[in-house]
Amino acid sequence: MTPGRPFLQIPGPTLVPDRVTRAMSQPMIDHRGPKFAALLREILNGLKKLFKSASGQIVLFPGSGTGGWESCVVNTLSPGDLVLGCVNGYFSDLFCRTAKLHGIEVETLELPYGLGIPADQIEQRLRADSGRRIKAVLVVHNETSTGVTTDVAAIRQAMERASHPALLLVDVVSSLGCIDLRFDDWKLDVALAAPQKGLMMPPGMAILAVSERALQANESAKCGRAFWDWRPVLENNAAGQFPYTPATALLFGMSESLKMIFEEGLENVFNRHARLAEACRRATQAMNLKLFPRNPAEYSNTLTAVSMPDEYDADGFINHMLRRFDLSLGKGLGKARGKLFRIGHLGSLNELELLGALAAVEMALFSFGVKLPLGAGLSAAEAYLLESAPNLPST
Amino acid sequence: MTPGRPFLQIPGPTLVPDRVTRAMSQPMIDHRGPKFAALLREILNGLKKLFKSASGQIVLFPGSGTGGWESCVVNTLSPGDLVLGCVNGYFSDLFCRTAKLHGIEVETLELPYGLGIPADQIEQRLRADSGRRIKAVLVVHNETSTGVTTDVAAIRQAMERASHPALLLVDVVSSLGCIDLRFDDWKLDVALAAPQKGLMMPPGMAILAVSERALQANESAKCGRAFWDWRPVLENNAAGQFPYTPATALLFGMSESLKMIFEEGLENVFNRHARLAEACRRATQAMNLKLFPRNPAEYSNTLTAVSMPDEYDADGFINHMLRRFDLSLGKGLGKARGKLFRIGHLGSLNELELLGALAAVEMALFSFGVKLPLGAGLSAAEAYLLESAPNLPST
Amino acid sequence: MTPGRPFLQIPGPTLVPDRVTRAMSQPMIDHRGPKFAALLREILNGLKKLFKSASGQIVLFPGSGTGGWESCVVNTLSPGDLVLGCVNGYFSDLFCRTAKLHGIEVETLELPYGLGIPADQIEQRLRADSGRRIKAVLVVHNETSTGVTTDVAAIRQAMERASHPALLLVDVVSSLGCIDLRFDDWKLDVALAAPQKGLMMPPGMAILAVSERALQANESAKCGRAFWDWRPVLENNAAGQFPYTPATALLFGMSESLKMIFEEGLENVFNRHARLAEACRRATQAMNLKLFPRNPAEYSNTLTAVSMPDEYDADGFINHMLRRFDLSLGKGLGKARGKLFRIGHLGSLNELELLGALAAVEMALFSFGVKLPLGAGLSAAEAYLLESAPNLPST
Amino acid sequence: MTPGRPFLQIPGPTLVPDRVTRAMSQPMIDHRGPKFAALLREILNGLKKLFKSASGQIVLFPGSGTGGWESCVVNTLSPGDLVLGCVNGYFSDLFCRTAKLHGIEVETLELPYGLGIPADQIEQRLRADSGRRIKAVLVVHNETSTGVTTDVAAIRQAMERASHPALLLVDVVSSLGCIDLRFDDWKLDVALAAPQKGLMMPPGMAILAVSERALQANESAKCGRAFWDWRPVLENNAAGQFPYTPATALLFGMSESLKMIFEEGLENVFNRHARLAEACRRATQAMNLKLFPRNPAEYSNTLTAVSMPDEYDADGFINHMLRRFDLSLGKGLGKARGKLFRIGHLGSLNELELLGALAAVEMALFSFGVKLPLGAGLSAAEAYLLESAPNLPST
Repeated sequence: MTPGRPFLQIPGPTLVPDRVTRAMSQPMIDHRGPKFAALLREILNGLKKLFKSASGQIVLFPGSGTGGWESCVVNTLSPGDLVLGCVNGYFSDLFCRTAKLHGIEVETLELPYGLGIPADQIEQRLRADSGRRIKAVLVVHNETSTGVTTDVAAIRQAMERASHPALLLVDVVSSLGCIDLRFDDWKLDVALAAPQKGLMMPPGMAILAVSERALQANESAKCGRAFWDWRPVLENNAAGQFPYTPATALLFGMSESLKMIFEEGLENVFNRHARLAEACRRATQAMNLKLFPRNPAEYSNTLTAVSMPDEYDADGFINHMLRRFDLSLGKGLGKARGKLFRIGHLGSLNELELLGALAAVEMALFSFGVKLPLGAGLSAAEAYLLESAPNLPST
Repeated sequence: MTPGRPFLQIPGPTLVPDRVTRAMSQPMIDHRGPKFAALLREILNGLKKLFKSASGQIVLFPGSGTGGWESCVVNTLSPGDLVLGCVNGYFSDLFCRTAKLHGIEVETLELPYGLGIPADQIEQRLRADSGRRIKAVLVVHNETSTGVTTDVAAIRQAMERASHPALLLVDVVSSLGCIDLRFDDWKLDVALAAPQKGLMMPPGMAILAVSERALQANESAKCGRAFWDWRPVLENNAAGQFPYTPATALLFGMSESLKMIFEEGLENVFNRHARLAEACRRATQAMNLKLFPRNPAEYSNTLTAVSMPDEYDADGFINHMLRRFDLSLGKGLGKARGKLFRIGHLGSLNELELLGALAAVEMALFSFGVKLPLGAGLSAAEAYLLESAPNLPST
Repeated sequence: MTPGRPFLQIPGPTLVPDRVTRAMSQPMIDHRGPKFAALLREILNGLKKLFKSASGQIVLFPGSGTGGWESCVVNTLSPGDLVLGCVNGYFSDLFCRTAKLHGIEVETLELPYGLGIPADQIEQRLRADSGRRIKAVLVVHNETSTGVTTDVAAIRQAMERASHPALLLVDVVSSLGCIDLRFDDWKLDVALAAPQKGLMMPPGMAILAVSERALQANESAKCGRAFWDWRPVLENNAAGQFPYTPATALLFGMSESLKMIFEEGLENVFNRHARLAEACRRATQAMNLKLFPRNPAEYSNTLTAVSMPDEYDADGFINHMLRRFDLSLGKGLGKARGKLFRIGHLGSLNELELLGALAAVEMALFSFGVKLPLGAGLSAAEAYLLESAPNLPST
Repeated sequence: MTPGRPFLQIPGPTLVPDRVTRAMSQPMIDHRGPKFAALLREILNGLKKLFKSASGQIVLFPGSGTGGWESCVVNTLSPGDLVLGCVNGYFSDLFCRTAKLHGIEVETLELPYGLGIPADQIEQRLRADSGRRIKAVLVVHNETSTGVTTDVAAIRQAMERASHPALLLVDVVSSLGCIDLRFDDWKLDVALAAPQKGLMMPPGMAILAVSERALQANESAKCGRAFWDWRPVLENNAAGQFPYTPATALLFGMSESLKMIFEEGLENVFNRHARLAEACRRATQAMNLKLFPRNPAEYSNTLTAVSMPDEYDADGFINHMLRRFDLSLGKGLGKARGKLFRIGHLGSLNELELLGALAAVEMALFSFGVKLPLGAGLSAAEAYLLESAPNLPST
C-alpha cells in the first residue's frame, strides 16, 4: 500500500472525484418509483447538454463502451450490409470488428496508427459508391490507442459534399466531456460513449445519443437484438423507467458528475483539458521524447501518446513506473504494442496533479536509463501553464 | 426527505450494506494492472463457492440480469433452434422472449402464475422429442414476479430420466445467495444471476456460471454476438483482465459482499432467508391475507407475493404505502398486474428490519381501509422468530 | 457481524444519517481559510435558530457534553461561589460535581430519580437567599438517566418571581433538536449541548449558547481556564477562525445536520419526537411494564426509561438484548443502576425503525422470561401512530 | 469548486487518506458495549507502540492539542508552582501561556524564532535551582511555527546531568508519527499530541502519554480540573469505557490510521518524512529562497518554513497561492507574522504529491513576481528523490 493519494494516468478509467463517490454512496431506491423517475429526467437532460443535442435521444445501458459499439451496430444495420470502417488505431479496429461479428460487411479505410481520418478520402469513397450500398461510416472521434483526434465535423461535411445518405456512427468514448463535440451541428447519427472518461465516473455503462434517422434505421435493422435494443429503453424512459434493472448507483454518480461539469462550465472543461494536454506535450518534448501522433492539428486533449525511444522497451518502462511510483500509464495496443506509452490527462484533473504525474514520468524515465535533463519537462509545463493561465477571479 | 433510515422492500435491488458501499468507494485502479488481476481472481473463486461449482466457469459482464439472458442465449443457441421455455411468471416469459428475439423457436410450457414448473411435464415432453430437436430447457429458479421457487434439481432428474441431451439454462437472479443452489450437483449448464439480490450490491452486472457442455455449445452457436461472447472473457480472465472495461467499483463491492456472505456462512445465509420468509408469510396470513403462490413447497424465501383482497386495488395500496412510509413494495407484473403486492426480504436484512417493514404493511393496509386486527401480523412473526431462533453463541 | 442494518437505541450517540456521514467525508480544508470561515458562519447562524436565540452567542469546542459543563462553570463562576444545583438523576449530579471540582460550593436541591425539578422549590429557596449569595442555578433540561424533562420555562418564571439575579445554567444535551427549547424566551444564561443527540452526529463537541449576562460573568469569574474560555473563541470566530484547531470533519457534518433539521422543519422535528415517544410509552405499557418517570407531564420525548419488574435484573436483560439482537439499550445509571432500561428514540429515527426496536424489546423480554402478550406492545404503538399521523401531502 | 483533487500543504490538518475516511463512516456503536471496549484496547496498544512506550499510560480526550496543553498542566502542577518554559516559537509560547492561565509561574527561556532549545542552557538553569523550585520543564518537540525540531533526548540528558527532579513535559503534536520520538528512552513525563498530523486524521482529539511520575504528580496537583483529569479516564479505560462520551467516529479512524502506519512500518514512515522534507528544502533553496530555521541539524521533517524575500509580503504570497491553485500554505505566526510561509509535508503524503505542491510554490512565486529559474526547484527535488530512493521490492 503506497502512502498518500494514488495517481492513475491511464486514459480512463480515471480517479473519481470525491463528490461523485459520495453521491454513489446514497441508499438504493426503487427503480420504478417517482424518485428514480426524477433522477432519470435530470440525467437525460444533462446528457443532452453534454452532447450538445436538442434533437437526439439519449439511450443508457449498464454495460461499457464495447457494449455501446454493439448497441450502435445492431440497432442500425442488418447482416450483409456494407459499411465503411475507418481504422486508425486499436479501438477503431475493434469497433469495426464488432460490426463484422454481426455479419456486417466492413470495408476498411486503413490509416497508419498516428493519423486521423482524412475527410477527403471518405468523400472520394462515398462518391464512388454510386449504388449507395454503404449504409454507414464508422469513425472513432478520439483514438485512445494513439492519442489522435479526428475532425468529425469535416467528415460530415465530406459526406454532405458527396450527397451520400450513409449514417455517421461515431465512438466518442474518450472525447465526451473532454473535447468539443456537437451532436446536432455535426449531424451525428449515433455517438456512443462511456462514463469513465470525461464524466469522471467508474466504468459500467454505455451512453448513446441517437438521431432521428438512426431511430428510423432501428425499425428496419435486422441484426438479432434484445438487451441492446433502443426502442424499449426509449419507451420505458418516457415513464421514468428502464426495461432492465438500471445501474442505480452509477446514475447517482452521473447526476453529480453532470452537476460538476456544468458548475465548471462545459467550455471551461474543454479549455482545461486543452491546457493540461498542451502542457503535457511540451513537457514530454522537453524530455527529448517524440509524440506518437503525426499532425499537431490532431493531437488529442484527452491523452498524450509518447513514442518510446527505439533502444528502450515501452512496456518495460511502464512496469518500472508502476513499481517505482504505483502509477499506471497506458500501454501500446494493437500495432503500437511496446512502442509507446500513453499519459491520460482527462476527467477530474488539475494542474498540480498533472505536474506530479509529469514528475513521475521524468523521474521514472531517468531511473530507467533514458538520458534526459531532469526538470526540463516540468519547467516547460510550468512555463506554458503560467502563460496560458486564465485570469484569476477578482476577490 | 423522510427522516431516519429508508426501508426498501422491493425484491431487489435491496439496500446495500455499508461495508459494501465503503468498499465501492475505494480509488479507481488500472483494470490491466496486477492489483486488478488479484481482485478478479479472488472474486471468481468466491463466486464459484457461491454457485457451489468446482467444474463451471464464471463469466462476468457489466450489464444486468436481462443481459445475462441474452448472453445465455447467444452463446448456446443458433437461430432456428427449438427450445422448451418454461413460463410461470413475468420474468420467465421475458427470458423466453429474449430467445425469440434472437430467432430461436420457443415452445412454451405455460403454467398459471403462482405455480412452479412440474418436472414430470418436462420429462413427458422430452421423452416425446424422439428427434432430439429440443436444444435447451429454459427455467427460472425463483420467479420474482410470483414468489415461486421451482425445484430445479427435480427438473434435472426428469431430463436424466428422459435421457435427453438438452442443455439446462437457468435464471438464478433472485435465488443466488438467498436460496440453496447447486450448480454442479444439479448439473446446470448455464446459471445466470445479478448482483442486486443475494449479493447485496447495487445493480449493474450480469453474472454467469457455465458448464463444460455450454462452452462446447458456444463453439457452434450461430447467434450474432460480440459483447456477450464468453470466449474472449474467459481468455482475458486467464491473464487477470477483461476484453471490455470492467465495472471496477462494482467489483470492489463484490469482493466485500462475498467476504460478508462467507463470514456469515452460506448455509446460515440460506437459513436466515428461510426464517425471515416464514415469518413474513405467517405475518401476512395473520393479517387475513392470502399468499399468491399455491404450493407451500414452492414458497420463495426471497420474497412473498401477497394477493390483494378483491375489493382493493393492489397498485393503489402500494402507492399509499409509498406516500405514507416512503417504503416501496413490488407491484404485480404481467398477468398479475394489480392483483398482488410483493414484499422483498432478501440480501442484507435482519429480523428487526423485517418487523419494521411488516409493521408498515400492517399499518398501511389498515389506513388503506383493509380490515385487519392491528398487531396480529407482527405477533405471528414474533412468535415464529422466537421459536425458530438459533441458539445464542455462548459468551 | 450481524446481517442487515444495526439498531442502536441508547439515548445517544445515535445512528448518524448517511447524509451527515457523507458530508463528514469531504476533504479537509484549511481552518484559517475563507472556505472555513464561510462554513463557520453558516453553522453559527443555524445553531442560533436551533437554540431559538437571536441575542445569545454560540461557542463551540471540540470536546463533549462533559466538557460543556466545565466550560459553563469556569466561565461564569469563581471558587467559593455558592450555586443551587438541582439533582434529579445521574447527569445532573455530575453537572454539580463538575462545579465542586472547581471549588464551587454547591447546595443541592435533591429530588428522587423520576421527578423533574419543581419550580416552586426553587422560588422558595431563592426568596430565602436574601443576601443574594447564590450565583447560579444549575438544571438539566432533559435528565437522560431517568427520561424526565424539567419545565425550564417555569424555573425561569420562579426566579423572576423571586427577583433573584442568579444565572440560569442549563444542560440541554439531550433536548436540543428533540424537545422545544427557547433560549431567548426562557432567558437562559448558558445552555450547553452536544452533537450526538438531536443533531444526529457522532460525538466530539461541546456546543454552548451564552447570554450577555453570562458573558459579563466571564469577565469576573476566577476559575482557572484556558481551553474552555469563551472570549478567545468569540474573538477568533469574528474572523472566521478558532483559537484551537477545530474538529473540521464534525463541522462538515453539523452543517449538513442543520440543513436536514430545517428542511424537515424544527417544529416538525419536535412533533416527530413527541409522536415516537408516545408510541414507545404506549407500547411499553401495553407490555405490562411501568414507566420510570412519575409525572406524565414530565415524560421525555427523547428517551423512555422503563422500570424493570422487580424479579428481573435490568442489566441482565440489556445484555440478553445485545446478544440476541445486537441492539444496545441504555442501562440504569447512578441510583437507578440495575433498576431500569432506557430506550432512546431521538435524532434521525422514523416510525418503522422505532417499531423494529419495539419488536426487539418485546421479543427480548419474552425470551428473557418476562410474561407479556406478544404483539400487544406493537399493536398499541401502531394504533397510536395511525391515529396521530399527520396528513399526507397531497400528490 | 476547483477541478481535481485538492492540495493542502498547511502543517496539519492534512488530507485524510480514504481508508481513514471510510473507517470513520462506520455505523455508530454503543460506547459502553463490548465492541467499543475491543476497539479501545486495540487503539491504546497501537498508540503505545507509536509513542515507543511500554511504561507510559495513554490518555485520550475529545479536544485538541490546545486541550492537551491544559490537560498536561492541570494534572501535574498547582497554582504558584514554578516551571521553566522553553519558548522558541508561537506554539511553545502558547503552551507556557496555558500554564500561566492556571496560575503557574513560568520562567521562560526565550530563544529567537528559528532556533531549537539548547540543552546546555537548560542544564545551567537547573543546576542553579538549588532549591528545586522548578517543578517542570516545558518544551515543544517540533515547533510548527518555525519548522524547528528540538533535540529532546539531549534535554533529558541535561536534566540528568543536573540531577534535577523536574518533570519533562513535551508537546509532540507535530512530531508524533512523523519524526522519531521515544517516550520511554527519553524518559518523558508527558507527551501530548493530536490526531491531525502524523496520524493522518481529522482534528478533534487530545492524545497524551503520561509516565508513572506524572501520574504521581496528578495526586498532589491542585489546579482545578474535571474534564481533563487523567484518573477517571484511566479508571474507566480499564473497563473499556470513558468518563465522557468519546469521539467514536474519530476512534474508528484512529484504529485504521494506526494500522496504516504499522503496515508501512514506523521507521519507514519516519524515513519517508525525512526524504520528502529534504527534497522540499533542496527545492526551495534552488528557488533562491532561504530556509527560516538556522541550524540544519534542527530542520523539521514535518514542515519547511521558508523566509519570504524582504521585498515581498509573505501573506500576500500565500493569498495569491490560494487564489491561483486553491492550495493553502501556513502563514507566519506570532513574531514571524508576514515573514515566512510554511509548507507542510507530513502525514499521508507521497513524492508525487510533494512535487505537485512544489510546482505550485514555484509557479505561484513566479507569477507573484519573485525572480526564480522555473523548474530549478523541481529539478533539485527530483534529483534528491532519485538518489535517495529506497530499493524497489523485487518482483
